[in-house]
Amino acid sequence: MKRRQFITKASTLAGAGIASVGIAKASSNPKIKWRMTTSFPRNLDLLYGTSQRLADSVAAMSDGEFEIQVFAPGEIVPSTQVFDAVQNGTVEMGHSTSNYYHGKNKALSIDTCLPFGLTTRMQNAWYYAGGGTEILRELFDKYNIVNFPGGNSNTQMGGWFRKEVKTIADLKGLKFRIPGFGGEIFSRLGAIPQNIAVGDIYSSLEKGTIDATEFVGPYDDQRLGLQQVAPYYYTPGFWEGSAMLTFYVNKDAWNTLSPRNKIIFERAAAECNMWMAAQYDAKNPEALATVIKNGAKLRSFSKEILQAAYDVAQEIYTEEAEINEDFRKIYTHWKDFLNKEYQWFRVNENIFQQFMFSQFRRQS
Amino acid sequence: MKRRQFITKASTLAGAGIASVGIAKASSNPKIKWRMTTSFPRNLDLLYGTSQRLADSVAAMSDGEFEIQVFAPGEIVPSTQVFDAVQNGTVEMGHSTSNYYHGKNKALSIDTCLPFGLTTRMQNAWYYAGGGTEILRELFDKYNIVNFPGGNSNTQMGGWFRKEVKTIADLKGLKFRIPGFGGEIFSRLGAIPQNIAVGDIYSSLEKGTIDATEFVGPYDDQRLGLQQVAPYYYTPGFWEGSAMLTFYVNKDAWNTLSPRNKIIFERAAAECNMWMAAQYDAKNPEALATVIKNGAKLRSFSKEILQAAYDVAQEIYTEEAEINEDFRKIYTHWKDFLNKEYQWFRVNENIFQQFMFSQFRRQS
Repeated sequence: MKRRQFITKASTLAGAGIASVGIAKASSNPKIKWRMTTSFPRNLDLLYGTSQRLADSVAAMSDGEFEIQVFAPGEIVPSTQVFDAVQNGTVEMGHSTSNYYHGKNKALSIDTCLPFGLTTRMQNAWYYAGGGTEILRELFDKYNIVNFPGGNSNTQMGGWFRKEVKTIADLKGLKFRIPGFGGEIFSRLGAIPQNIAVGDIYSSLEKGTIDATEFVGPYDDQRLGLQQVAPYYYTPGFWEGSAMLTFYVNKDAWNTLSPRNKIIFERAAAECNMWMAAQYDAKNPEALATVIKNGAKLRSFSKEILQAAYDVAQEIYTEEAEINEDFRKIYTHWKDFLNKEYQWFRVNENIFQQFMFSQFRRQS
Repeated sequence: MKRRQFITKASTLAGAGIASVGIAKASSNPKIKWRMTTSFPRNLDLLYGTSQRLADSVAAMSDGEFEIQVFAPGEIVPSTQVFDAVQNGTVEMGHSTSNYYHGKNKALSIDTCLPFGLTTRMQNAWYYAGGGTEILRELFDKYNIVNFPGGNSNTQMGGWFRKEVKTIADLKGLKFRIPGFGGEIFSRLGAIPQNIAVGDIYSSLEKGTIDATEFVGPYDDQRLGLQQVAPYYYTPGFWEGSAMLTFYVNKDAWNTLSPRNKIIFERAAAECNMWMAAQYDAKNPEALATVIKNGAKLRSFSKEILQAAYDVAQEIYTEEAEINEDFRKIYTHWKDFLNKEYQWFRVNENIFQQFMFSQFRRQS
């Protein structure tokens, strides 16, 4: 992309959401030029849009001195090699989701989420006020990476199924596209987890190569048209009660930044983290209505499936903690935080919200 | 406060929470010097701490070019005159909560919250992605103020009561310290809302001048020791399902800022907004345990009281919309957003969270 196109695109995206205060023009001669490779194609506009928003914020706050150019998957490295590209210094930074690197070290998945884990509010509390950032930084440091929270999808949907699944027996032999710990849970429940690229999901469901797939939530899912080939749309995506994205910065690149540029980057990243969550919360309601109007049939996972999945998840975590010191250390901290948070939210936020939901049942 | 003390304090506060990347020293000769008057005394460290965090962020990101000095209530103007001081240009900016100015224009209360309103997530979605900022800016513009979300207490507690209240009859004649729309609701239910300064709450409860008070949530409330004189600690604070604070900037001062300083300010404010909510979520669980250990008896408002309060709240909003065009316009937008959000959260986030809560009931 040429410079002029790049700047124009940046200005357009920066104008979305909160009323922009005007983006400074990029300097014609920036002192710092970084490349950010992302895992998210441009048409997933909230995901890719958050990558671009970080670049815009940093450019504007540094008066164009610090420029970050964003690259879509495949332009430098594929979607799932962002972590490696940052670690190796191929690029100065990346934007991805750490559970893509589950095979490298399962402790990395905690950075995104664990199944039956924290909500978005709790996850932010852990990162920004509960010691989560500090303990995860020790892990990422082993990979020469400095990590920053970089957006959240909030609770994801459970995905698209060709047939209803009501019991554990219904999961037997089910070919379900689901990665990471979510896949391990379904595997223990008798399903057969699959890895299939996003572009191949529709045809795989149509042909019956797979029986079900998870993706994100209504706003992103509506683009795939899956209600045509897998009409049962399940809630909730219990393996991603929230799902955080992460900005990765190569540690050597980070260490070259001035204190001022470091705090500009850090504050910009934090703002992006909140911005994405706000966008999903604002846009998912209408998107859910759209997919239902287009034929999706909304279903909840049964208590039987939820409970079996929960119990299996605890077994998996216990086993992983026994063989993986990184996982054990971070998981122990995370689990202690999770216990306290749910006890508190159950009292106050939950009683308020349950009453509010009761009013909507009353009206509808 | 002398410059050296100011810088030292700033550095200390900036080190809290997320690992700081180092705060640049304030310039010895800043180009822009603003004064921020806040509504929050220094000992309420999350509230005042957020005021200070904004100043620290702006100073660090501008390399000391843009300095904001923070003043506690009474140092320039009292706690409840922040709005006026900013409007009149006595100070360039302030940090307060817009429902303190309920008497000026009840539409301002929507900026903080309405009883039975949005949760923190929903409120952020409204502000940053749902048009809330834009529609509120039109209101604040009439007062020569540019507004920015500036922190959130999240769902507040219902406060401290000397005796249990189970029915509407129990509210008859109850002298309850509660401001704004919350006070109007309790008034229609037979209680007598009171305005009493924070420093006088304990003695007023002890002497029986009042029967009950609301304040914030466990983290702030634990400092007041109210379980000694009003042991029943009620949940939820349905009049503040979330409660947003606001940074006010005098419009003339705002217009003097460069595009770069504007975006530095805006991003810093957004980060503060999230940071405060994360701090409360991280710190409230242990604080609740502390007040209970110290003698507080946790109670929930009855369905009878919640339902009556909800119904009365809807009447009050309808009446206000008939006589107040500002309120009508903003409330209509807000209410439409609220309806969509609760329908969506009820489906996905709620089913996930209810299952998680069920596991804690199972364990406990």
